[in-house]
Amino acid sequence: MENITIKVLASKLNLSATTISKALQDSHEISEPTKQRVRALAAALNYTPNTYARSLRTRKSETIAVVLPEITDHFFALVINGIETVAREKGYHVLIYLTHEDYNREKEILDYIKKGRIDGLLISVTKNTIATNHIAAMEQENIPVIFFDRVMEQMQLPMVVTNDFESCYQATQHLLTCGCKKISVCTISTNLEISKQRILGYQKAMTDNNIPLEETHVLFCDDDTQCYDQLYNTLKAKNRPDGLLAIVDKLTLPIYLACEKLNLKIPQDLQVISFSNNPTAGILNPSLTTISQPAFLIGQTAAILLLNSLDPKNNKVQQDITTIPSELIIRNSTGYKKL
Amino acid sequence: MENITIKVLASKLNLSATTISKALQDSHEISEPTKQRVRALAAALNYTPNTYARSLRTRKSETIAVVLPEITDHFFALVINGIETVAREKGYHVLIYLTHEDYNREKEILDYIKKGRIDGLLISVTKNTIATNHIAAMEQENIPVIFFDRVMEQMQLPMVVTNDFESCYQATQHLLTCGCKKISVCTISTNLEISKQRILGYQKAMTDNNIPLEETHVLFCDDDTQCYDQLYNTLKAKNRPDGLLAIVDKLTLPIYLACEKLNLKIPQDLQVISFSNNPTAGILNPSLTTISQPAFLIGQTAAILLLNSLDPKNNKVQQDITTIPSELIIRNSTGYKKL
Repeated sequence: MENITIKVLASKLNLSATTISKALQDSHEISEPTKQRVRALAAALNYTPNTYARSLRTRKSETIAVVLPEITDHFFALVINGIETVAREKGYHVLIYLTHEDYNREKEILDYIKKGRIDGLLISVTKNTIATNHIAAMEQENIPVIFFDRVMEQMQLPMVVTNDFESCYQATQHLLTCGCKKISVCTISTNLEISKQRILGYQKAMTDNNIPLEETHVLFCDDDTQCYDQLYNTLKAKNRPDGLLAIVDKLTLPIYLACEKLNLKIPQDLQVISFSNNPTAGILNPSLTTISQPAFLIGQTAAILLLNSLDPKNNKVQQDITTIPSELIIRNSTGYKKL
Repeated sequence: MENITIKVLASKLNLSATTISKALQDSHEISEPTKQRVRALAAALNYTPNTYARSLRTRKSETIAVVLPEITDHFFALVINGIETVAREKGYHVLIYLTHEDYNREKEILDYIKKGRIDGLLISVTKNTIATNHIAAMEQENIPVIFFDRVMEQMQLPMVVTNDFESCYQATQHLLTCGCKKISVCTISTNLEISKQRILGYQKAMTDNNIPLEETHVLFCDDDTQCYDQLYNTLKAKNRPDGLLAIVDKLTLPIYLACEKLNLKIPQDLQVISFSNNPTAGILNPSLTTISQPAFLIGQTAAILLLNSLDPKNNKVQQDITTIPSELIIRNSTGYKKL
């Protein structure tokens, strides 16, 4: 099959390539009859513009990128769905890039996409991201950046988050109301701003109830392969917690499995709350009390902010923080009032 | 900040743009001292090649696309992880596009990516995809295509699938062995080849056990919003099934919820098997017997086939079918032997 280019069209119509190009872009410099001839031939020969060539000219790709840690987590999957709803309505394509919590990979991805492929970036950083040069470099290329969920607070960029501090305060308060005396919090990161806020919320609720904080009550389950063993050992110890607040969904499974192995009943022996958007939370054994994040709405909001900023009619995005509250959904893994 | 282009480098070094370009590509036509001068200045000025311009020249993007229905399903999320493991090792970027089961969106995405953005495509079609012109058009652009999971069998293209027929035969046989007399199968599509194979596997097991097939025993839950009501009504009926085989994971939740509402005990009143890669299957109430697909391996295999085909040293990909078996994992939602 002959490759139909602007040159081919030009030759067949005995016009210059520039005229063809302008006609296809509906330029006022070209007469209507000429435009019609060009369009008719382009359609007949099934001409499709080369995206690279067009992007080189316009420097606009009508494409945004989403960079995030993983998608086996329902939270991120729902965020993407929210982003795509907005992007599709506005005629934008969405490229999804996964960092798999690898900071070097995140740098490589940003380095790759900043070279002209995208108009804007939505990012949730890896749990190991500390430096921000790679994100600042996007700004230098005039690619607007908006954070969602996992933000770099020190950067003066717009961010869409949930009320991490308050929701963990409320969850801890709920465990205390249910009679828990020894509440621990489990995290996969102490570096992420959201993790810090969640742990601070837990700590504030504890101190507001005159319960002294103990360092060992923050379980740091960084390594997926060791996570189960850590939880198992913690729950096997004589002085084990009677309440657990998991600040990330992936900790739910090892907690339930460790309890099963140790023959600990939830909620009688251990009351459990986890951050989760997994729809199976309600049919777990027992059903799980969750902090349910507004994942879809976070995605929608971040996308609306970004696409608005790309519209030349609008001003630059305000460098502020949009907070959309999470919801504590009480189910059977808590609520057991000890005598 | 000045935009550092090849022209800028050429002007500063008093060389032609062609020389700069060839030097940066390490061409044998350029002397080593010249190359060194060019590289040194490029590094000093932080020159980064424009991807569009480079791709226009080489027509290679070192990028593959994955087009699939959704990512809130663990199966697809794991497939993507498998693909990314291979792509990263080979230095390829992965673009992920979601169709959300919308056939027109699938066509738009393929139309968009065929215009020069990618070197190869891995695709799992929507449940509504019947025509194949949009996929054939990729081939015409010399973009190799490999199917995974949801294939278009009539196309002579490589495909990576699991043993859908056999695994459903085995699952149905298991339900029969557990004493089920009235087994229904639930599907979200009767159009997809994998759905057809799964239903055929169920039907073969039934007829092999001399149980007559009834049309009403295939529940077609096409519409997410009506799915729960359909299942509820089916399970409320006097002549309700005592065994259910769900051939897609998203049906697990409405089945469990309908049973809870109707006060039907799993497995005593209803034995349930579902296709699922959701890690929570083992902690559901009760734990769920699953057909667990080799999702990660399917992704890896499809990516290896595709990247091999892009290597000019290799032959074109064989147009054959790679089948990786699924595993029946028996848990507490089945196994109740009626007297």
